[in-house]
Amino acid sequence: MKFDRKDILGIKDLSVDEINVILETAESFLEISTREIKKVPTLRGKTIINLFFEASTRTRTSFEIAGKRLSADTINISASTSSVVKGETLIDTARNLEAMNPDVIVIRHSAAGAPHLLATLVKQAIINAGDGAHEHPTQALLDMMTIKEKKGKLAGLKVAIVGDIAHSRVARSNIYGLAKMGAEVVLAGPATMLPRDIEQMGVKSYTKLEDAICDADVVMMLRIQLERQKQNIFPSLREYSQHYCLNTRNIKLARPDAIVMHPGPINRGVEISPDIADDPAYSVILDQVNKGVAVRMALLYLLTGGNE
Amino acid sequence: MKFDRKDILGIKDLSVDEINVILETAESFLEISTREIKKVPTLRGKTIINLFFEASTRTRTSFEIAGKRLSADTINISASTSSVVKGETLIDTARNLEAMNPDVIVIRHSAAGAPHLLATLVKQAIINAGDGAHEHPTQALLDMMTIKEKKGKLAGLKVAIVGDIAHSRVARSNIYGLAKMGAEVVLAGPATMLPRDIEQMGVKSYTKLEDAICDADVVMMLRIQLERQKQNIFPSLREYSQHYCLNTRNIKLARPDAIVMHPGPINRGVEISPDIADDPAYSVILDQVNKGVAVRMALLYLLTGGNE
Amino acid sequence: MKFDRKDILGIKDLSVDEINVILETAESFLEISTREIKKVPTLRGKTIINLFFEASTRTRTSFEIAGKRLSADTINISASTSSVVKGETLIDTARNLEAMNPDVIVIRHSAAGAPHLLATLVKQAIINAGDGAHEHPTQALLDMMTIKEKKGKLAGLKVAIVGDIAHSRVARSNIYGLAKMGAEVVLAGPATMLPRDIEQMGVKSYTKLEDAICDADVVMMLRIQLERQKQNIFPSLREYSQHYCLNTRNIKLARPDAIVMHPGPINRGVEISPDIADDPAYSVILDQVNKGVAVRMALLYLLTGGNE
Repeated sequence: MKFDRKDILGIKDLSVDEINVILETAESFLEISTREIKKVPTLRGKTIINLFFEASTRTRTSFEIAGKRLSADTINISASTSSVVKGETLIDTARNLEAMNPDVIVIRHSAAGAPHLLATLVKQAIINAGDGAHEHPTQALLDMMTIKEKKGKLAGLKVAIVGDIAHSRVARSNIYGLAKMGAEVVLAGPATMLPRDIEQMGVKSYTKLEDAICDADVVMMLRIQLERQKQNIFPSLREYSQHYCLNTRNIKLARPDAIVMHPGPINRGVEISPDIADDPAYSVILDQVNKGVAVRMALLYLLTGGNE
Repeated sequence: MKFDRKDILGIKDLSVDEINVILETAESFLEISTREIKKVPTLRGKTIINLFFEASTRTRTSFEIAGKRLSADTINISASTSSVVKGETLIDTARNLEAMNPDVIVIRHSAAGAPHLLATLVKQAIINAGDGAHEHPTQALLDMMTIKEKKGKLAGLKVAIVGDIAHSRVARSNIYGLAKMGAEVVLAGPATMLPRDIEQMGVKSYTKLEDAICDADVVMMLRIQLERQKQNIFPSLREYSQHYCLNTRNIKLARPDAIVMHPGPINRGVEISPDIADDPAYSVILDQVNKGVAVRMALLYLLTGGNE
Repeated sequence: MKFDRKDILGIKDLSVDEINVILETAESFLEISTREIKKVPTLRGKTIINLFFEASTRTRTSFEIAGKRLSADTINISASTSSVVKGETLIDTARNLEAMNPDVIVIRHSAAGAPHLLATLVKQAIINAGDGAHEHPTQALLDMMTIKEKKGKLAGLKVAIVGDIAHSRVARSNIYGLAKMGAEVVLAGPATMLPRDIEQMGVKSYTKLEDAICDADVVMMLRIQLERQKQNIFPSLREYSQHYCLNTRNIKLARPDAIVMHPGPINRGVEISPDIADDPAYSVILDQVNKGVAVRMALLYLLTGGNE
């Protein structure tokens, strides 16, 4: 199948076929990162700009490694050292970058829709690396890739997503993706963290963790975003963790072969207990990170005309 | 012509022949950035250090892309994460970098003359990427390249530069360069923004925008540096823009085929109205950015002995 | 000799044979940085992560240049723009990086022992680029390389280290290394800057500079860390420099062919007078920086199985 998208803005827009092409391409790239010489010349002479308006280690590093392993030139721009300080608009920043002839612009921005705006304005491929509480498509793709590897399939699985659903771009992208691929998604979180229109997305939601993870094949714990949380939407961290921390006791409600996921960074003891996070029988958290590089390699490859 | 300069510190020092060599070399490099594989091996094994003591997106990115497209290794150092925090002198920083055998050091610094000081102390090629309110030679070179492309020549053109002339390194470098190349430069700005000794530079200056842009072939609008402006040299932004904002009305005073330039980042509605900035009939602002990569490639090439 | 260490965490752990292998490898790499094309394909396809939790110009730049000259891909992560902002533990950061299959992680951290912790947890090679007041092994290696080049040997030399010994990882690593290699190390500093257990390290210590540098072959001045010093362990900078600043007068107590070293950044006039720092007859400070690139190239090479 020819992959003829210009941009990757969200999972909502992608077809099942497109998701399958991305996951298959990523699987074929997985092996490169295990070689003695972890580099192929595929994107030599291509320029990839990582334009990050929010702090990030793993996502920016993952994109940078993905680009370099494909021999692309990678340029990092972080908001704190950039013209943004001087008050330039996002659109002008993007158009200026466009004029330097990059091939792909990877953008993370606190405003939902920022990558979509860019995509309509510049001719380069745009990859959304997280936009506000909206979408984080590469995270959902690496999550689906991880589940598929561990479970052999996506269709028919029960996936529980637990935490601050309302503010989570990871949850949103995964809900879109997993539903498309035939998985059953159920949610759990405090009522203040569940979006009001959530039932319209075709998923069940619960206020009790136990109700959601019961018989789940996959338990995906979300990060409580301590640094963003100023609105007091839950009484206290201690109370949150009493009700929503995944631990050795409540994990027993899930299927015995359930896997546990987390997009990171982990707040140990808040949303996940250390013994679960580090238990190789359950945790696939580092598999997710590992798949992230392959998924980003696949997207960089496909968006620069790789499989034409 | 052999190009045997060690450094590019300012336009004031360059001869007409040297400017022509740089512009012609840049023109020959322009095409590389439009290729499928945007990379040539010319500077393989050369090390270029971008030493930025002031925030920058476009200039730093432009130099980094220029270096990478020539296959050089590029190293970014920004003041906020560097030894400058520890109080090291600029001279010691430079000598330490010199000891690591780079080939070119690109420096931006808030102090006028900083690159010149470096150039006398270290054996490597120094490129001034902006020093205080003094010079910004690569900006003037890309401006001249853009004008030459759009107008076919520099000599005989009337170029109006409007804004905070006194604090603008862009204005200063362009005044030197355009005058050398035979263009007529006229200036406009509030009296507080016009240098006192400006007539000695051989240019006319006006306090009314309209007087300067009348019959101009090129209108170059400068950025009001909001982040630097603490001295209240103009009453208010609103008043400034009432008198000095280029808009669809006053642009009609210029020649019908006039081009509009701006070094960016733009303050939309302050020094330039959005409809002029985005009007393809007038605005060559993104052409300037595009030429910037080629000019910097040319300088990196020439200073590392490219045309010997 | 096969070099089969996984990590370089400190000089204390290294054998004399290992130090010799590193220094000899570094000597063979020194020439690469003087070539027209300063790049060899040795580490092509290897990924090196510079994970810096403290500000640094020279050390980070030195590692980055070392990696690039060996054709490795280098990734910089500085704490201020990373997940550390989000409160992730060092261990989780490291494990996440591990999952992206780098080959070497270079870490600088304010906590003594941080690199050692990482080394036990991740399978990649760890290089300590400075951990708190504990060790800075690459600095000691480049110092030993410099001394060996200038003096032809290490054994039998008298090396005086002067300054804030108690808070200096540079001093600690050099004391271990120089003692192993057969040099005589003597220390000087205010009593508040001398570790209490210092005699157990087998070195003599003095509170007078003059007593330590008398007949020294090498005088190594430490940096007063102005930015860390909030505990008032010395009355004033002026008083410190009156007693402990190396100058044209007291240097005469050392051997006539003594060399003067400093790990940088220098506080001119505090611990070393400018005329000594800049005197080519004494100062080898920039030689140290130059050797730093070669030492780091050697370590990157050896830790990725270079000499197997």
